[in-house]
Amino acid sequence: MKGPITDRELTVVEQAGILIKDDFIIEVGAWNALKEKYFYEDVNLEEIESPAVCLPGFIDSHTHICFAGNRANDFAMRNAGKSYLDIAAEGGGIWSTVTQTRAATENELVANAMHRVSQLAAQGITTVEVKSGYGLSVKEELKMLRAINTVKRLSGLQIVTTCLAAHSVPKDASVEQYLAEVNENLLPVINKEGLSNRVDAFIEQGAFSPAQIQPYFQKAKELGFDITVHADQFSVGGSEIAVAYDAVSADHLEVSGNNEIKLLAQSNTVATALPGASIGLGVAFTPARKLLDAGACVAIATDWNPGSAPQGNLLAQAAILATYEKLTTAEVLAAITVRAAHALRLTNVGKIQKDYRADLAIFSTDHYENILYHQGQLQPSKTVLGGKLTN
Amino acid sequence: MKGPITDRELTVVEQAGILIKDDFIIEVGAWNALKEKYFYEDVNLEEIESPAVCLPGFIDSHTHICFAGNRANDFAMRNAGKSYLDIAAEGGGIWSTVTQTRAATENELVANAMHRVSQLAAQGITTVEVKSGYGLSVKEELKMLRAINTVKRLSGLQIVTTCLAAHSVPKDASVEQYLAEVNENLLPVINKEGLSNRVDAFIEQGAFSPAQIQPYFQKAKELGFDITVHADQFSVGGSEIAVAYDAVSADHLEVSGNNEIKLLAQSNTVATALPGASIGLGVAFTPARKLLDAGACVAIATDWNPGSAPQGNLLAQAAILATYEKLTTAEVLAAITVRAAHALRLTNVGKIQKDYRADLAIFSTDHYENILYHQGQLQPSKTVLGGKLTN
Repeated sequence: MKGPITDRELTVVEQAGILIKDDFIIEVGAWNALKEKYFYEDVNLEEIESPAVCLPGFIDSHTHICFAGNRANDFAMRNAGKSYLDIAAEGGGIWSTVTQTRAATENELVANAMHRVSQLAAQGITTVEVKSGYGLSVKEELKMLRAINTVKRLSGLQIVTTCLAAHSVPKDASVEQYLAEVNENLLPVINKEGLSNRVDAFIEQGAFSPAQIQPYFQKAKELGFDITVHADQFSVGGSEIAVAYDAVSADHLEVSGNNEIKLLAQSNTVATALPGASIGLGVAFTPARKLLDAGACVAIATDWNPGSAPQGNLLAQAAILATYEKLTTAEVLAAITVRAAHALRLTNVGKIQKDYRADLAIFSTDHYENILYHQGQLQPSKTVLGGKLTN
Repeated sequence: MKGPITDRELTVVEQAGILIKDDFIIEVGAWNALKEKYFYEDVNLEEIESPAVCLPGFIDSHTHICFAGNRANDFAMRNAGKSYLDIAAEGGGIWSTVTQTRAATENELVANAMHRVSQLAAQGITTVEVKSGYGLSVKEELKMLRAINTVKRLSGLQIVTTCLAAHSVPKDASVEQYLAEVNENLLPVINKEGLSNRVDAFIEQGAFSPAQIQPYFQKAKELGFDITVHADQFSVGGSEIAVAYDAVSADHLEVSGNNEIKLLAQSNTVATALPGASIGLGVAFTPARKLLDAGACVAIATDWNPGSAPQGNLLAQAAILATYEKLTTAEVLAAITVRAAHALRLTNVGKIQKDYRADLAIFSTDHYENILYHQGQLQPSKTVLGGKLTN
């Protein structure tokens, strides 16, 4: 699961067949052999027109797609050379999204997120992680988490919900006050109502320091949550605490140096690159090649959010990262399938294999290399979601 | 036309109307005022549902979309760390495209290019430049140019054809022999048959040196062709000769330094950034900010080709360049409309103004800033091509 992968390690089955029952894969093999084996069984044959390449449905393991409003003006100002502080002074920045998300009803948030999930689904993505983090109060974080859980019921995709109460510090409280409130009145409710089993925090100057975040992670551990961390985006510190808390993933890592890379490589924590945030802010990419070479498990996700990563095109971003960081096709495909599943601690998605969910992305093309080659412009012609074929 | 542009210089007409006759714009103004003014005329009213933002149809002023075959394996090998020479040794590189393009019939080339033109049209692009350059013999370059002219007749878009006979040196001839042959037997035929009025050359180590290309540019000048140059992609030299020959544009410029930037800024040559080649190869972007600040006229184009720029998404690339290079929205929109028109010496496309072609891209969104904000993911809902509305 960790380290470099050559394309020779990709298993390609020519003229393949996949036997599916209910939501799951029963058997994978040569089409003719499967047909013969199950000749006397009551099997419904669905032949995909050639050329076709079938991959595991993609997994976007880090998104913030539950929000209201729009930050196009931030994007335009930042590109025009305005600073973070200029943008905040003109009413932009994360607080504009918090304000608009708080002003939205739960149903509006559901509708917004459903629309974005459908855009991800059109790319062949069948599992999507969605974070809260624009509520920043017990009440508003619960509203977001309930909205995401509604999307989980309605969308047909696998949705993984994450509590990101520690995204930013509310303006009317100290870090300590806010996290004490979250620990006392938010995490236990999330746990009790089964709204999420994952917590996330943004470890960064101006957000939460490694020291400040410890009570929150401690409480989360006690309640049995998995931990994931926004780490090393603009300054280091996050990946160290991620590894210390045995986080399932440390995401961003744009400024991780050799020490951080070594720590991550020696841990069980998945290192998640977010190239959408690099092309959204105009900064360097996560050192994915160095992470892989050191032995880390590297996933790639969109980070789709209204501020720093507004694109939301996983294949485009994965292909661009591959070009700048020199990644093999196998490394990229693993990073958006099985390694992303690992970051979410999901053991039944991300592979086309017996007992895995029948979540598939089917492209009308004659070679799997074409999928990254077109850098996001080649979309799947069909998707299979829990065994159901959609066009 | 040259240098920096602030967003204040964008003219935004709220509740606008555009009066179109045949292929052209007759008048632009407020919808209600126009309705009143033409109340007694026989005008067919077409109301676009709100929200809608209407921009000039985009112009992709540098493409190589007429080709056969595919270089996905080059892309995968390059990402996996293989060198240019390794890739060529395994049968990749430009010669694989030349071989496949030579093997294709003219009709196959038309079909391939038409498919790609339709993908560009879906992005709101209404004018596309298309180069030859994968024939590299008199006969095969003519086949390509005829194919592109057929696309020009069939596609409904404005197609600008460019002779890029000097793309690479054929394996069986010296540079001097090949260019003498081109000058004697190709350029006069192109001129006589009206197949193109533009020539292009790849000035680069391993392709054509500034000294070697002079007879070709000289002959082109004599025949009245416009000159455009692939310049300063990996080493400098191209922009200097571009300016010396008063080229309409110098394209690429990834490695242009202060001297080249100054030369271009003081010339009438448009500096065309090709961010698709940067994200296709994993190299730095054209210094668009420095070029603008020095006073150059900067266009942006896709460079869509099977080798180094396989994506072909103009808005995504323009937005990404804007983020890394710190460009205003106005600078980017000008670069893919009126400044790109200038690079092609077209005076009736790229603006929504009286006597301009009614080529428009209409987006279902409430603010023009949203169009770049989504980094290529927001496509126009409607396009107007020569006055004809398409969905």
